[in-house]
Amino acid sequence: MKAIQYYQSQFIAHLEAYNKARAPLSLYEPIQYILGLGGKRLRPILTLMTTDCFDGEVSNALDAGLAIEVFHNFSLIHDDIMDNAPLRRGQKTVHEKWNLNTGILSGDAMLIMAYKLFEGYNAKQFQELTALFSKTALEVCEGQQYDIDFETRTDVSIPEYLKMIEYKTAVLVAAAMQMGAIVADASRENQQKCYDFGRNLGIAFQLQDDFLDAFGDPKTFGKQVGGDIIENKKTYLYLNAMALGSESDKRKLKTLYDENSAHSDEKIATVLQVFQQTGAAEATNKAIQDYTKAAFDVLNSLEIDPIKKEPLRDFGIHLMTRTS
Amino acid sequence: MKAIQYYQSQFIAHLEAYNKARAPLSLYEPIQYILGLGGKRLRPILTLMTTDCFDGEVSNALDAGLAIEVFHNFSLIHDDIMDNAPLRRGQKTVHEKWNLNTGILSGDAMLIMAYKLFEGYNAKQFQELTALFSKTALEVCEGQQYDIDFETRTDVSIPEYLKMIEYKTAVLVAAAMQMGAIVADASRENQQKCYDFGRNLGIAFQLQDDFLDAFGDPKTFGKQVGGDIIENKKTYLYLNAMALGSESDKRKLKTLYDENSAHSDEKIATVLQVFQQTGAAEATNKAIQDYTKAAFDVLNSLEIDPIKKEPLRDFGIHLMTRTS
Repeated sequence: MKAIQYYQSQFIAHLEAYNKARAPLSLYEPIQYILGLGGKRLRPILTLMTTDCFDGEVSNALDAGLAIEVFHNFSLIHDDIMDNAPLRRGQKTVHEKWNLNTGILSGDAMLIMAYKLFEGYNAKQFQELTALFSKTALEVCEGQQYDIDFETRTDVSIPEYLKMIEYKTAVLVAAAMQMGAIVADASRENQQKCYDFGRNLGIAFQLQDDFLDAFGDPKTFGKQVGGDIIENKKTYLYLNAMALGSESDKRKLKTLYDENSAHSDEKIATVLQVFQQTGAAEATNKAIQDYTKAAFDVLNSLEIDPIKKEPLRDFGIHLMTRTS
Repeated sequence: MKAIQYYQSQFIAHLEAYNKARAPLSLYEPIQYILGLGGKRLRPILTLMTTDCFDGEVSNALDAGLAIEVFHNFSLIHDDIMDNAPLRRGQKTVHEKWNLNTGILSGDAMLIMAYKLFEGYNAKQFQELTALFSKTALEVCEGQQYDIDFETRTDVSIPEYLKMIEYKTAVLVAAAMQMGAIVADASRENQQKCYDFGRNLGIAFQLQDDFLDAFGDPKTFGKQVGGDIIENKKTYLYLNAMALGSESDKRKLKTLYDENSAHSDEKIATVLQVFQQTGAAEATNKAIQDYTKAAFDVLNSLEIDPIKKEPLRDFGIHLMTRTS
């Protein structure tokens, strides 16, 4: 069985060969920069693993995986503008290092470059990959818009929140996997199962992000623990606390999330306590487990040699037992 | 022979059926708005005419033409942000009516929506249309980047300027026409001729824009005559004046373009005089005529029934004899 590192190193070599300077430099240098900032390359690794699990040529999956990674980085550039974020992976964001116009235009070019990466596939695969990509990319935009809308809404329901994270995060993981299946000429049914595995895993991953942001170990969690609470983000934990809590819990949370408290340590401690006592922490943990189980159930139902599924299972476990 | 209005009304009906509200409204309302602002719909009309000229079904060309129009409007939203433009077709620009983030995200969604419009075509046409679209869209981004770069450069050559307007404007006209040929299953050779007709006509059109901005009749020219001069834009007229003029002409122009003169009427008058006496006006007129002739020569060489070419020829003449 191949290790995660095998797929990762294959992909990184492909990315590095692709990521060259082109004219006009003012357009393509920022693209080189963001693609060179690193990252775990989770999505393209999943594409490669999926192709391999159906006995497809891993090398044939490289461009599809790269399309997903280029799109992901396009969305980071534009999201960072919208979020006014100064840093990305510890380095300056594109609009900070260059300017707003460069961020917009280099991002636009990347979206188109992602599409171009399907051009080497045969007509049938090209059409399937491109249509799946368009559907997914539009959902990611819609997810981003829902996320923006939710900031100023006070009546967001839990199903709405789940739909938002599904669109904003999970569908791209799902598409990365289905693309791997398309490249390997897997059946429609198996393609759909790969999509569903990725979608469930993606939702579980994002819910875990919400959970770790509140309850992660400061020693191992990469970002500041409590960041979402300080920013008054209505995460899955918050929405569940508001759904499950007593009137007094809800009032307490609402007050804490309305003010820009300077006593942030105190605020975090109180909010965490409410998340615990309302059962929101438990509900979130249960949802993570449910979505993870749903993902693995789909994987189990794939009618292929069990040994072939091992890398995907390992990768799923690896993702869902992370502490950062 | 069908009149321009026939193609235009076919297209507008198709656009109106397409341009409906969708959820999330905050993402799709700005798209409905920009697509509803009007405009001459020149590019999709060319797509429809080209399909018709090869005896293809005009109704089959509607989605390809719409893709071009949706892309064109995507580029207007993002360009208006980059240019800080408050108005578009006499109405508020998207980022002014809503905000920056909406302009970015709704624009992104439109770029993806343009790609989706090819999904109804057969696998071969889908691949040809999509690949042509990606190539063209990336060139448009590069053209926009060159335009931005040229603002701060003082050594732009005439060939560089021509390449910039080719990418920024002409290739989309060219692609609109080639798409019409693809939809009608025209031969590769005829497809290329349609592309070349559109490319030459597009360059001629843009050079004429430069010319009318300086020498147009204020009574019929839509925008303020002399706008490019007030904004110190290095147009084809300016670059030719700098190439053809005496040392004294060049010094005069350089000084006028370096200062933000309050006496704009006087500045315009002096610059126009320099454009005339250096031969830049004549050189620009000659270039417009040369590119227009090149376009019609390509059209003449198309091996189809001459009567079929009439709408394209008429449309070309209509475009190149405009006063606004």
